[in-house]
Amino acid sequence: MDKAPIEPLSNAYRLVNPGPVVLITVGDGEADNLFAVTWNMPIRKDPGMVAFLSGKRHHSYPFIERTGELGVNIPDASLADAVLGCGSVTGAKEPDKFGRFGLTRQPASRIKVPLVAECVANLECRVCQIVDLGASSLIVAQILAATADPRHFQRGHWTFDNGLQLLHHLSGSRFCVSSETITATVPPRAQT
Amino acid sequence: MDKAPIEPLSNAYRLVNPGPVVLITVGDGEADNLFAVTWNMPIRKDPGMVAFLSGKRHHSYPFIERTGELGVNIPDASLADAVLGCGSVTGAKEPDKFGRFGLTRQPASRIKVPLVAECVANLECRVCQIVDLGASSLIVAQILAATADPRHFQRGHWTFDNGLQLLHHLSGSRFCVSSETITATVPPRAQT
Repeated sequence: MDKAPIEPLSNAYRLVNPGPVVLITVGDGEADNLFAVTWNMPIRKDPGMVAFLSGKRHHSYPFIERTGELGVNIPDASLADAVLGCGSVTGAKEPDKFGRFGLTRQPASRIKVPLVAECVANLECRVCQIVDLGASSLIVAQILAATADPRHFQRGHWTFDNGLQLLHHLSGSRFCVSSETITATVPPRAQT
Repeated sequence: MDKAPIEPLSNAYRLVNPGPVVLITVGDGEADNLFAVTWNMPIRKDPGMVAFLSGKRHHSYPFIERTGELGVNIPDASLADAVLGCGSVTGAKEPDKFGRFGLTRQPASRIKVPLVAECVANLECRVCQIVDLGASSLIVAQILAATADPRHFQRGHWTFDNGLQLLHHLSGSRFCVSSETITATVPPRAQT
């Protein structure tokens, strides 16, 4: 699919705002890997920043430490099987998880890490801080560039009018799917 | 609603796993407050831990620093207006946000902080680390106890069979709603 750049880039955090599972891509120009991450969130709007948890012994961890670059790729519900696969199989045993799960490398504009072409949105990020949280690390990264499918992200916002189904991880092989929106209203103050 | 304790407690992280917006409650036995947090995630399964972003000048920040206790309350879609209200009005100007937005204080079992009765699940947490991330702080808290509506959380898992609608924040007053699940399957390796 053709994707459009997110402009201004300060809107890019909204791509991960609703809490979808993401595919993190890493690579150094020779080897690459991708893995599913449920535990992620934005942490800043402008400049846009995201954070996620990674085990220190994770196969991709040395890539992140060495290159300081990563992609955050947002799958829709049609990619649930591939997401589960990317979260179940380690890159230590499967050097080509893209091929193994039918995903296509999409070149990035600002980093050497491949993105996932089939995802509805992609963020190109530079690592700016790694916080030791004991058993795991919090990877904090700044968004350098972002693109999204213009059918589903319009004028700085996700739209569900064209069939978008975002994927949220429940546990194990189960996911829930968001496919509709509501607009809330601050309740008026009661008359006193 | 009557809620049931989550047992074993190592399942409690699953309450926040799909990325819902949450209401954080704080209090010191005399005053209390609650506010909406989109930027939250689990960071450990056992012992269960959650993390979320908070601005350092947020009205509730001194409560968190002083008491080391907080509640994580998970609203369903029926509470969208109250969630938006809690995220739009500061406790500095509205000392009773519970009353202002029609929410009921539910006593907690392990902490002095009130929980939100109308929410479908509640986590009682003790702060174990505050990480300085520059403009804001990452509050890391361990889950001490958790309860959930037994119609919607059964045998350690969210179920959507009884009309559950989880609420995910998009931006501003817009939310998306997840109300259905899919079970994924790892794609088989192609025959070679």
